[in-house]
Amino acid sequence: MTVTAVREQTGAGMMECKKALVETAGDFDKAMDVLRKSGIAKAGQRGDRAASEGLVEAYIHPGNRVGVLIEVNCETDFVARTPEFGELVRNLAMQVAAAGADYVRREDVPAERVAKEREIFAAQLEGQGKPAAIIDKIVSGKLDKFYGEVCLLEQPYVRDDKRTVGDLVTAAASKTGENLIVRRFVRFRLGKD
Amino acid sequence: MTVTAVREQTGAGMMECKKALVETAGDFDKAMDVLRKSGIAKAGQRGDRAASEGLVEAYIHPGNRVGVLIEVNCETDFVARTPEFGELVRNLAMQVAAAGADYVRREDVPAERVAKEREIFAAQLEGQGKPAAIIDKIVSGKLDKFYGEVCLLEQPYVRDDKRTVGDLVTAAASKTGENLIVRRFVRFRLGKD
Repeated sequence: MTVTAVREQTGAGMMECKKALVETAGDFDKAMDVLRKSGIAKAGQRGDRAASEGLVEAYIHPGNRVGVLIEVNCETDFVARTPEFGELVRNLAMQVAAAGADYVRREDVPAERVAKEREIFAAQLEGQGKPAAIIDKIVSGKLDKFYGEVCLLEQPYVRDDKRTVGDLVTAAASKTGENLIVRRFVRFRLGKD
Repeated sequence: MTVTAVREQTGAGMMECKKALVETAGDFDKAMDVLRKSGIAKAGQRGDRAASEGLVEAYIHPGNRVGVLIEVNCETDFVARTPEFGELVRNLAMQVAAAGADYVRREDVPAERVAKEREIFAAQLEGQGKPAAIIDKIVSGKLDKFYGEVCLLEQPYVRDDKRTVGDLVTAAASKTGENLIVRRFVRFRLGKD
């Protein structure tokens, strides 16, 4: 971690940041604490990260029992304000409201959850006398199906189920000429998860 | 855990649920897994809980760089559809957008975070030669201030800072005659936390 990173996060002076880093043998988190304890840095500033562009958008299903908040990033404010990008973000919010999803992409699924699904699929196939190689293949197919249900980008797009949501994002990226990233979303169901 | 609870969560038959519970010595989570492994219950059903009433509402700040999703519960659908309740929920969403908050109430702040704040406050006072009792009192005052910043219900209401947000909710509860609960919220800032 460099002095610059500590400065960006704390707004403290160059020398103060350097001193804090030397004092903590270069440990970023401890240096932040030193600066806070000396009253130089304020609470809550650690969460601030370098800004990126895009839109934060919401979709509330009629009746106010399901709602979604989503953030989609692009590279420039110019693209963020185009109708194409706005439409993509609204469609993604609606997709999450309609279909639900637990993660943006399969890399976001925790390893424990994958292991548990794998175990359950294997148990379902047990005692059917199938060879191990076939079981592996079936489990792996079932896992793909699982990803297609819980990962937004792998879901069939609700307004055109011949395409995945990922295809929709890719098409918008090529139209706008920028790298587009679904950063995060949440979905609230009244009285539920 | 009763058979009824397992039935509600899985949609499986009474006898199947009973059998799964006996097999797992009454362990709810394990019984759910048994039912899933046998193919009777489906993935993702565990999250379903008994419904409560209220509204899910969003507030997107002009420019789409800050957005909030909030769920507020009441006891009946009748109250959920009153203008008073709707106004409360919208005002709460706007409060979160304007002031930010990390938690609904002080009970929601993790013990580790409180311990850390306490430690930092104590360190700030060190070496000033104050008696321990005075330091305790000052730290406790600083902690109250901290709660007033990070807990929604303890914040001053942005549209009338003589009242707390909790006062606003209490007033609406007395007006509607129902117990009102801010269940959860999230706040996205573009490119930030």
